[in-house]
Amino acid sequence: MNEFELIARLTKALPTNGTVVTGAGDDCAVLDLGVPENLILFKTDAVVEGVHFTSETPPEKIGHKALARCLSDIAAMAGTPTAALVTIALPKKFDADFITKIYDGLNALAKEHGVAIVGGETTTNPERILISISLLGTVPRGQQVFRSGAKVGDAIFVTGELGGSLAGKHLDFEPRLAEARWLTEHFTLHAMMDLSDGLAGDLRHIAEASKVGAVLLKSALPITRAAKLRAKESSTAKPAALAALTDGEDFELLFTVASKDAVKLLDAWKKEFPKLKLSCIGKIIAEEGIFLRDKHSSHKLNAHGYVHFA
Amino acid sequence: MNEFELIARLTKALPTNGTVVTGAGDDCAVLDLGVPENLILFKTDAVVEGVHFTSETPPEKIGHKALARCLSDIAAMAGTPTAALVTIALPKKFDADFITKIYDGLNALAKEHGVAIVGGETTTNPERILISISLLGTVPRGQQVFRSGAKVGDAIFVTGELGGSLAGKHLDFEPRLAEARWLTEHFTLHAMMDLSDGLAGDLRHIAEASKVGAVLLKSALPITRAAKLRAKESSTAKPAALAALTDGEDFELLFTVASKDAVKLLDAWKKEFPKLKLSCIGKIIAEEGIFLRDKHSSHKLNAHGYVHFA
Repeated sequence: MNEFELIARLTKALPTNGTVVTGAGDDCAVLDLGVPENLILFKTDAVVEGVHFTSETPPEKIGHKALARCLSDIAAMAGTPTAALVTIALPKKFDADFITKIYDGLNALAKEHGVAIVGGETTTNPERILISISLLGTVPRGQQVFRSGAKVGDAIFVTGELGGSLAGKHLDFEPRLAEARWLTEHFTLHAMMDLSDGLAGDLRHIAEASKVGAVLLKSALPITRAAKLRAKESSTAKPAALAALTDGEDFELLFTVASKDAVKLLDAWKKEFPKLKLSCIGKIIAEEGIFLRDKHSSHKLNAHGYVHFA
Repeated sequence: MNEFELIARLTKALPTNGTVVTGAGDDCAVLDLGVPENLILFKTDAVVEGVHFTSETPPEKIGHKALARCLSDIAAMAGTPTAALVTIALPKKFDADFITKIYDGLNALAKEHGVAIVGGETTTNPERILISISLLGTVPRGQQVFRSGAKVGDAIFVTGELGGSLAGKHLDFEPRLAEARWLTEHFTLHAMMDLSDGLAGDLRHIAEASKVGAVLLKSALPITRAAKLRAKESSTAKPAALAALTDGEDFELLFTVASKDAVKLLDAWKKEFPKLKLSCIGKIIAEEGIFLRDKHSSHKLNAHGYVHFA
């Protein structure tokens, strides 16, 4: 049994109650705790030494990444983050200055976004540092955006550029909170999520939750300089477009809107966020699956984002 | 630098905002998110293989313990738990049935207390299982109980019996949620917390937060059969009273009320909870420090709960 099969088994019959608007399966859980104007967003995410960072990673960037990952999930629901708890599991012998600098990075990002750090705990993990963040946020009722609302004919958009995150972006990316709030205040978003596992895999989550398919235009994919350089410099590296589809840890917003809004959205975005690229990369279709189209043909992508030759 | 010094350093200057009623330092963080009648409680707690359980622990009990620890902290604020996220960090090779049974124990306890499990994540921790739970709860405005409200002259109470938890209770204890809600609805509690590190150390947290001291009556300490048996069977085991003071993981409620309410409270408790012992174990005094009094004399306890011979 792999991790995804395990999650499917564990989330099949979870206890619920009347406060739950959305449980497991979207970027955040959504709860109705009786705030007249808002719903509550609830999210947890962990980073582990040797998996998400190494002992050579600058500690401030570890803290930044740990919190930014959660903030990106609040952005994906079009929410505003409020308060976080920080659990840090440490070997018995720890470097107090290193840990303090992890918190420096975390606190700086929290301050930037008005997030309170309201506690947490230290515990023991003998072999490696593990940081788990719990985050609360709010979203005005009716403005939350789920993965499940994509409609046939929708235009698919992505912020920023994709691929090659391991070259550095995975440690110092900026969660797209202001952008997501602006989007939901000015346009009707049908579906949204943040890109953590790679466009090909993550778009599949939107497609499956919405019971639709999607076609991506290869020439429209925004690709980072890092991914292009890597493809050029090494013959064994992924082609740049494949890197954009599969590298993961992009932490950009992926969303869909009705096609009639697409041009208006692109124009308004350029005025509001002139420094951040927004790309229309494809459309939602009725046929299930994710397809990649270039000028010659269209290929169905397999579960890992690669072209499937059946 | 030890863990407590590290925590003191890390929590010195945490970012805050207008939603924070109480940040780090009490059993739960308390937030005002705009629910007209309630404040929000926010708590996280982790259990680690080899520290809080072993690979021989029945998996259902691991799940029970992981959630019960957090529920006990909600009880300590006189709150009601609402929704939890579960993060489970696993070695790459895991036993899916073992993990499923951990969730069975966790889900059973969640259902018992009306708690929704609204997601979480699985991640990698190569050497051992780590489970981190995040829990939200609510408490009616004005009914929350902090550690910091103990007053000179207060009677000190504890539920249940203390000591010897490692013999089994640490895995299957029942969080005192109903008891705490009943207490705060019928009496004015000045201070409350749950016992996790042992009475002597935990009472010190109430005393320091409240800027008071406390005297405990040795003969009034409620001691578990497990702690008494252990003391009797082995000459190297802790004396039973010392076990009650220092063993930890009791997860009982420790609270103070005005002394004028003490007898009325004991009478009402016996009618409401006839199966659960409630003991008046001492009183709050002005002099700082925790003292243990027997019929002959009074001794000041040191930081670890032992008698300090200065």
